[in-house]
Amino acid sequence: MNRIMIMTLLSLSLLAGSALAAQKPEDLVKERQAAMVLIGKYFGTLELMAKNKLPFDAEIVARNVAYLDVLGQMPWDGFSEATINVKSEALPAIYKNPDKFKKAAHDMELNITKLKNAQKKNPADMKVMIDEAGKVCQFCHDKFREKKDED
Amino acid sequence: MNRIMIMTLLSLSLLAGSALAAQKPEDLVKERQAAMVLIGKYFGTLELMAKNKLPFDAEIVARNVAYLDVLGQMPWDGFSEATINVKSEALPAIYKNPDKFKKAAHDMELNITKLKNAQKKNPADMKVMIDEAGKVCQFCHDKFREKKDED
Repeated sequence: MNRIMIMTLLSLSLLAGSALAAQKPEDLVKERQAAMVLIGKYFGTLELMAKNKLPFDAEIVARNVAYLDVLGQMPWDGFSEATINVKSEALPAIYKNPDKFKKAAHDMELNITKLKNAQKKNPADMKVMIDEAGKVCQFCHDKFREKKDED
Repeated sequence: MNRIMIMTLLSLSLLAGSALAAQKPEDLVKERQAAMVLIGKYFGTLELMAKNKLPFDAEIVARNVAYLDVLGQMPWDGFSEATINVKSEALPAIYKNPDKFKKAAHDMELNITKLKNAQKKNPADMKVMIDEAGKVCQFCHDKFREKKDED
């Protein structure tokens, strides 16, 4: 996907929440957390490979990046302002700085696209790119998610 | 996807769990539940359209079916026997009748593929197919998931 397509998809997916306004805030939180859990599942394996804690497997990398390309579109409509009082790790900064949050979400999708386009590179290059994508995750968590012990 | 591809993918995804054997059973449960939550999110909208509770929107149908095509591959490696003692709604029948469970999982993926291939049909036909896919979800929940009040 190119930059414009991603921005369009992001806007659409941010809008999709309001199109189904009947959803309970608790469900929105549960669904966005589910998307993040699965992003963690499939990106986590890539990170273990990048850190040489798992053998690099090009087929699993290709599958996980394809999954991430879809999963990366899913959390955003769950960050509706209607969820602000539901207990979660999401910080109020998300709703105070929606443009910054949107940019961070966009950066994540951009990095997934980079990984998708880079799959013909050699494992060493891929590991560097996975590591860079991991920093983008971390940057957004640092700004917009409650600190956890593992941070 | 055709039948053989789905069976291959299913076998691969059932194997993928054991390939990453270091995973905690609690995480496997959390991840498979996350996949089910998102399948519920994107199939739920289709069901509302099929029941005329939401206006039929061919673009949202196409997007959700594409999402479901990917999400439908994700829960299965989480149903590892290692999770049998983790509290969840999954019934022991899953591990007593693994072939029946695998067949139910396969039927779900087959129905998603049918929806994917049927998207040029008219809304009335699509609604019937969504309804049929919903019955496949329900069949598996009835056999393999603890009864809930809404069942």
